[in-house]
Amino acid sequence: MNKIDNLKKYIVKKKLKLDCGKEISNFPLAYETFGELNEGKNNGILIFHALTGDQFPHGINPITNKEGWWNYALGPNKAIDTNKFFVISANVIGGCMGSFGPSSIDPSTNKPYGSNFPVITINDMVNAQNFLLDHFKIKKLFAVIGGSMGGMQVLQFVSNFPNKADVAIPIACTASHSAQNIALNELGRQAIMADKEWDKGKYLENGKSPSKGLAVARMAAHITYLSKKGLQEKFGRKLQERDALKFGFDADFQIESYLRYQGSVFVDRFDANSYLYITRAMDYFDLTKQFDGNLSDAFKGSKTKFFIISFTSDWLYPTSENREIVIALNAIGADVGFIEITSDKGHDSFLLDVPDFLNSVKNFLNNSYKNIHEARI
Amino acid sequence: MNKIDNLKKYIVKKKLKLDCGKEISNFPLAYETFGELNEGKNNGILIFHALTGDQFPHGINPITNKEGWWNYALGPNKAIDTNKFFVISANVIGGCMGSFGPSSIDPSTNKPYGSNFPVITINDMVNAQNFLLDHFKIKKLFAVIGGSMGGMQVLQFVSNFPNKADVAIPIACTASHSAQNIALNELGRQAIMADKEWDKGKYLENGKSPSKGLAVARMAAHITYLSKKGLQEKFGRKLQERDALKFGFDADFQIESYLRYQGSVFVDRFDANSYLYITRAMDYFDLTKQFDGNLSDAFKGSKTKFFIISFTSDWLYPTSENREIVIALNAIGADVGFIEITSDKGHDSFLLDVPDFLNSVKNFLNNSYKNIHEARI
Repeated sequence: MNKIDNLKKYIVKKKLKLDCGKEISNFPLAYETFGELNEGKNNGILIFHALTGDQFPHGINPITNKEGWWNYALGPNKAIDTNKFFVISANVIGGCMGSFGPSSIDPSTNKPYGSNFPVITINDMVNAQNFLLDHFKIKKLFAVIGGSMGGMQVLQFVSNFPNKADVAIPIACTASHSAQNIALNELGRQAIMADKEWDKGKYLENGKSPSKGLAVARMAAHITYLSKKGLQEKFGRKLQERDALKFGFDADFQIESYLRYQGSVFVDRFDANSYLYITRAMDYFDLTKQFDGNLSDAFKGSKTKFFIISFTSDWLYPTSENREIVIALNAIGADVGFIEITSDKGHDSFLLDVPDFLNSVKNFLNNSYKNIHEARI
Repeated sequence: MNKIDNLKKYIVKKKLKLDCGKEISNFPLAYETFGELNEGKNNGILIFHALTGDQFPHGINPITNKEGWWNYALGPNKAIDTNKFFVISANVIGGCMGSFGPSSIDPSTNKPYGSNFPVITINDMVNAQNFLLDHFKIKKLFAVIGGSMGGMQVLQFVSNFPNKADVAIPIACTASHSAQNIALNELGRQAIMADKEWDKGKYLENGKSPSKGLAVARMAAHITYLSKKGLQEKFGRKLQERDALKFGFDADFQIESYLRYQGSVFVDRFDANSYLYITRAMDYFDLTKQFDGNLSDAFKGSKTKFFIISFTSDWLYPTSENREIVIALNAIGADVGFIEITSDKGHDSFLLDVPDFLNSVKNFLNNSYKNIHEARI
C-alpha cells in the first residue's frame, strides 16, 4: 500500500455533501496530468475513467507496471493530443488507486473503511473531481471525455456544471442504467460477497482476500465487454496448447484460459470493495430520473457542444441507449453530433485500436478547439 | 437422497463406451413417460431436457414440488399432445435427478463419485437414452424433440441413429458451441469451484455444500436466458418494496431481488458437480467437427424430417446458429422446415407461453403424424 500512498494527490479541503446524505471533507483525489496548461487556461480536458480504470490512461502505471488504459487514444499526436491539450485524469472516489475509497483508512477507527464506506454515486464522483478545476485555476475546460462509466460522468458533469466545458464526448454509455446491466453488476457483487474471504467487507483489516470471488466477477464482466462475433473470431473453439480435448475441467479451450488469466491479473490490481461500490454507483445512475423523467432538462441552459459515440457490437451500452441522449439533446436544440462506429470489438472498442473511432475523436477535438479558441486569431 | 432413490429408473445392463474412453454398464437412467404407447408402437416421442432440466416436463415434480419445466408445451391437448403421443423423458447421464451422475455412489469406494465421475458428452447422453427404446421395444420413434442442450441431443441422436425417428425438432440450439457460450459456462464453473465448500468436488462425502458458488453460476446463466429488452420491460429500474434507493448493498432493484431468488431456489434442486459436468458436455459439443468440418455429413443417409425453430431475441443460441443447421440439411436435400419465432423472451422462449411457437410445434407434429402414419388408412 506504500506505493499507493506515494501517488500524486490533491486533498479536497472543502465539504462535499454526498447523495447518501453524508458529508465528506479533507479527502484525497489521486490524479495525473498530461501535457501543459496554456496561458489562457483554455486547453484543459478532464477525462473520466470507467469501472476499473484509474488516473493512468497514458504511459506506464507505476502500481501495475502495465500500459495505461487509454494509450491508444491519449498521448502526443494521438486522438486526445497531449502536445496540444492539458489532460487531467483522476481516480474516482470509491476507487482504489489513491482516491478516497473503501480501502482508505477511517481516521475514527484507524482501520480501512471497508463496508463502512458511504455508498457513492456518479454525481458524487463528478462533484469531487470538479474541485480539481479550482486546484488548476481552470474556469472552463475545453472538453470532458469518457467512455462507459466515464461517459456517464461526462453527462453528469455537464448537467451539474452547464458552463464548465466547451465540448463533451460521452462514449459507449447510457443516461440510465438498464435492468440487464444492473443484473450483470449484481452478479459481480454476489460473486465477491459469496467469497468467504470477503468477510463482510472487512478482509483488509483481517488479512484476508476475496480474490476468487473478485476473479469470477471480472470474468463475468469481461465476457460482456466483448462481442459474440469478436469472441468467435478471436477464440472460436481453439484449444489451449493441446491437440485434443482432455476430458477434464482444466482449460481445454483458449477462451477459458484467457478468462482465467483476466480474472487472475485483475485481483492483483483492484480492490474488491471498490468493485462493489463503483458498480453500485453505476446501477444508481439515472440522469433521466434526476430530472423527473425528462432527460432534456438535464442539459437545459448548457452551451456545451456534444459529440456522442457508440459502437455497433456493444451490447452492454448499445447504440439505442446512446441515441436516447442524442434525442434528448436534439429536443432542446443543443449542438450535438453523433456517430455509430462499426466495430466487432464490442463495448471494449473505446479502449482499443479502432481507427474510425480514434480519428473521429481527434478531428472533433482539433476542429472544435480551432473554431472556439483560435478562429478569432 | 432417499426420495431420489425411489424415482422410476431403467438400469442399463449393456456396456456403453464413453467418449472419454471409459466404459460403463449397469447404470440407472431415471425416466418418466406420459401418454400411452399405441399398438403399432409408432407414436413414441423422446424429449431431451436442457442443462438444468430433468425427467419431469409435465405435472408436479415430486422432488421439487414445482411444476414441470415444459408444462406449457407438453400435456393433454398441448403442443406435444400426450393424448396422442407416448412421451419418454429421461434425466441425462451426468444429471442429479436419479440418472447416473456425479452424486451417484461409486461402488468401488461407497462414496459419491464427485470429481471422479467421468467427463461425459452429448453423444454419451444420447447413446445412453437410446437404450430406453429397447426397454419399450420401440424400433422407431415418431419424434425427437428438445430445446437448448435438448436440441443438441436431437441433432446428435439423428446423427447417431439416422433411421430411429420420423421427425426431429431441434429448438434454440447450435451444432457447435460458440466461444461466448463456452465462456459463459466456464464462468459458472469457476463460480462453483471458487466456493471453498466445493472442496475439489468432494462436498457430498464431506458434508459441505457449495451453494453460494452454485447460486452465482445460476444467476449468471439466468441473465443469459432473458433478452435485454425483456428484462427492461419486466424489471426496468423498478425498486423492490421501497420508495427510494437505500444507499446500501441490499437488493434495491427488483431485478436484483429476482436474481438472488433464482440463485437461492436453484441450489435446493441442483447438484453443483452435475452443473460442472453438464456444462462441460455442452462446451464439448461440436457436431461439425465430428464430421471433419462438414455438418451435412452428420445427417447423410437419414430420412428424418426436420423442423428447426429459433427465437428472435435469443442471444445465446441466435437464429444465425440455428440457420447453419438448416443450411447443412438443405445442402444434402434433406426434408427441413425452419421458423424464427418473434419473441422478446430470449432463450427462455422455448420454455414459456409463446403461442406462435407452441402452435407451430403442435401443427407440425399432428400433421406429420397424420401424413406418415395415418395417410394410408
